Amino acid sequence: MKHTITVLLRNRPGALSRLTGLFSGRGFNIESLCVAETFDPQISCLTVVTHGDASIIEQITKQLHKLIDVIKVHEVGEGNFIEREMALIRVKAVASTRAEVLRIADIFRGKVVDIGADSYSLEVTGSESKINAIIDILRPLGIKEIVRTGKIAMARAPKK
Amino acid sequence: MKHTITVLLRNRPGALSRLTGLFSGRGFNIESLCVAETFDPQISCLTVVTHGDASIIEQITKQLHKLIDVIKVHEVGEGNFIEREMALIRVKAVASTRAEVLRIADIFRGKVVDIGADSYSLEVTGSESKINAIIDILRPLGIKEIVRTGKIAMARAPKK
Repeated sequence: MKHTITVLLRNRPGALSRLTGLFSGRGFNIESLCVAETFDPQISCLTVVTHGDASIIEQITKQLHKLIDVIKVHEVGEGNFIEREMALIRVKAVASTRAEVLRIADIFRGKVVDIGADSYSLEVTGSESKINAIIDILRPLGIKEIVRTGKIAMARAPKK
Repeated sequence: MKHTITVLLRNRPGALSRLTGLFSGRGFNIESLCVAETFDPQISCLTVVTHGDASIIEQITKQLHKLIDVIKVHEVGEGNFIEREMALIRVKAVASTRAEVLRIADIFRGKVVDIGADSYSLEVTGSESKINAIIDILRPLGIKEIVRTGKIAMARAPKK
């Protein structure tokens, strides 16, 4: 099963390395990871996506809490979080396929961010499944390169 | 000086940990890091942003090449790369400030992705400086939370 964990981390050399070591030490593969500053430059926010048994994720969460640089750990449950990802996709776009590439970009509310002699580069944001969907649809046209950010998550705001 | 490095990495347990260890072992702080699958699920693409002397970055790049799981390393130069980042920003939005928040979101081509009783959550994509700009402009209105992906980069396509 896929799990998403967000961690607030003090931004010190070695902190990230200790954290990733905790995952690999247990044979857990990190499927995606995003680390960036929050609005306090001393604190980074991490979003980790990993596969695994719920009980082992629980263990990892406990271990994370013990790391000195870790401030807060959240397991991202369904529904209560906004989950988003961004991808840059360079796709073949020759005379006969350009209109189709643009149509697909439009449907997925993507933006063309670069044009080459025989390719368009698209920027797309959305849930992981939306990004996977546009990749699957563009694949037969010829994808040249994909760079994804990995997922980030933020708790939904209270509605009242 | 800020440097952006992209790395293609075989997606094996421990690969990421060895890579982040290489940075922290040299006292280099990772400002942001994105790791996600490429269109081959066996291969991940990493984008690392770090501060440092050009000569030490060169050393790190050489060390990266020696890691068994590393397939390709690029230092992202200016101009030849598309650089993008995504941020989710939750900002206070009460009756008197909602219109202003929406105006700012509109100018930066952001999207409102969630509404709370007293807040809007915005999704914004763009260069690092664009994201910093919208954060600076929203700050006086009251930012409640920021989650950023960190930068990803893709080489521009040949124009002829």
